[in-house]
Amino acid sequence: MSDLKKELLKRREIFNERLKVFLDRGKPKVLYDAARHLPLAGGKRLRPVLSMVSCEAVNGDVETVIPVALAIELMHNFTLVHDDIMDKSNLRRNKPSVHVEYDEPTAINAGDLLFTLSFESMHQIKKDLTVFKELEYNLINTVREICEGQQLDMQFEKEKIIDEDSYLEMIRKKTAVLFEFSTMSGGLIGGGSKKEVSALKDYGRYLGLAFQIHDDYLDMSSDEEKLGKDIGNDIRNRKKTLIAVHCLNNAENEDRKVLDKYFGNKNASSEEVKKIYNVFKNTGSIDYAKKKAVQYHDIAREKLDFLSDSSVKEVLFDLIDFSISRKK
Amino acid sequence: MSDLKKELLKRREIFNERLKVFLDRGKPKVLYDAARHLPLAGGKRLRPVLSMVSCEAVNGDVETVIPVALAIELMHNFTLVHDDIMDKSNLRRNKPSVHVEYDEPTAINAGDLLFTLSFESMHQIKKDLTVFKELEYNLINTVREICEGQQLDMQFEKEKIIDEDSYLEMIRKKTAVLFEFSTMSGGLIGGGSKKEVSALKDYGRYLGLAFQIHDDYLDMSSDEEKLGKDIGNDIRNRKKTLIAVHCLNNAENEDRKVLDKYFGNKNASSEEVKKIYNVFKNTGSIDYAKKKAVQYHDIAREKLDFLSDSSVKEVLFDLIDFSISRKK
Repeated sequence: MSDLKKELLKRREIFNERLKVFLDRGKPKVLYDAARHLPLAGGKRLRPVLSMVSCEAVNGDVETVIPVALAIELMHNFTLVHDDIMDKSNLRRNKPSVHVEYDEPTAINAGDLLFTLSFESMHQIKKDLTVFKELEYNLINTVREICEGQQLDMQFEKEKIIDEDSYLEMIRKKTAVLFEFSTMSGGLIGGGSKKEVSALKDYGRYLGLAFQIHDDYLDMSSDEEKLGKDIGNDIRNRKKTLIAVHCLNNAENEDRKVLDKYFGNKNASSEEVKKIYNVFKNTGSIDYAKKKAVQYHDIAREKLDFLSDSSVKEVLFDLIDFSISRKK
Repeated sequence: MSDLKKELLKRREIFNERLKVFLDRGKPKVLYDAARHLPLAGGKRLRPVLSMVSCEAVNGDVETVIPVALAIELMHNFTLVHDDIMDKSNLRRNKPSVHVEYDEPTAINAGDLLFTLSFESMHQIKKDLTVFKELEYNLINTVREICEGQQLDMQFEKEKIIDEDSYLEMIRKKTAVLFEFSTMSGGLIGGGSKKEVSALKDYGRYLGLAFQIHDDYLDMSSDEEKLGKDIGNDIRNRKKTLIAVHCLNNAENEDRKVLDKYFGNKNASSEEVKKIYNVFKNTGSIDYAKKKAVQYHDIAREKLDFLSDSSVKEVLFDLIDFSISRKK
């Protein structure tokens, strides 16, 4: 994994430059400032970089995928801006969320604008119109599923217990579909064969699932400073992570009592949050989530068999390993 | 104007049937229910009907424009759902707004879904891909301008005074651009000549401006029951209608004092709201707005010279008259 950082950084820098240029415009200024706030606050750029690497992996010219990479990142940021309002999250990428830095109406509107700009970027695709239309139709379905996933996520918070399949369906929609779109679109724009595009698509889905489960895992094992997120919030809001879902379905005796008492308790102290954490550990739920992430990691890895070997394919390999080993 | 109602109703019924079918789907149910709430609560369907009539006016088959008509109405409803959250409006079409009937997070998400479904409908266009792409690009620009217009509208509420040109630019973006898109897209899909499409586009813009100014005028001269909106809100929120803008730029002496005291006063009583209304009258601001609406009405009318005479053209004529004479 020695060169992964370098490989990602190289593409991230190209991407960031293009994003900056793309967003450098617009009036009223406050609306465009609010729209720029999150996309220009940094971030790993995992999704756009994935589309770039996928394009290269089928020998495509990376330049051709940039409009889609921009569309993906803008769409991702649109969902984050609105999710933060819906979830009342006040921190994102170590900075105040858009609705905190500006206000809620401006944040709703800035999210809508990012949605619009995402589609605008799609119109810069320089491929034949059939490819453009297919990609755009896929992006529309992707956003629709993200909306559905977000709704499921909010619904699940109110439910006492949910089964694992429902949880997995939720994170597939909320997270994996955009990964899937990123790798698929890169392959399609890059001129990959049907088999290659389909393999890249599957790779993206399982990578996204592994990524999300590892993300939940990190939320449970990090401090606020490291993650730039409100920690404990997940527990206080009864957030259904795979860890929580497994625990709710398996905790017994004393563990069960602690779980029933503090999980979803808005006023739980840090001490009580800690207690829940220990229950998660006792029931083997944290280990279970880790195992599940590795399982998806393995499937994603297998999908890459359909691609010819190349240095870029190595990046895709390393990305899966990174998805379940990263510390933030 | 005897047959206008019948002509509009005929198309509205076709449209409503298609809208109902289009929206009859989706899970999680609560999200799709929330998304359906406003579009299926009725409404004049002025914009989609405009696209249908514009298509017919250039001898196009009305069936071909339905996907665009749906996209237009869905986009319009998406903006209304989000605007109602931003403006804290609790009533729309005589029913509770989506964020009141459901909750704010669900309403934000339902708005996003409507945005998505609007683009999905565009993909049903059965014309060659160049027309599809051009129309969609226009729709994207339209939504971008609507976002900008909404931001200006919110900004203006905080400002003490704005000039007339800024106000007109705001309503052009917030309202007229979607009218413009409706008439333009109808003409383009219907196979109109460049001149006809351009005339229809201009017609739409001025119709939209006349419509919006008359709308502000109605807000000032109706009661809550008639309009299904929170009356007095405009005055309490310092809403910059053309009437208010004219008055702020022209009120003198005693009128000025009343204006400074109660306009934008969140706690103004009905009595004080009434006082402001009288100031609007004294400064001739209500008459001024009426005159301006007629002026735009006349320009829209002239634009129709570019279309051949037909019974459908009569509908377009009647629609302009309706825009400045309607009572609700």
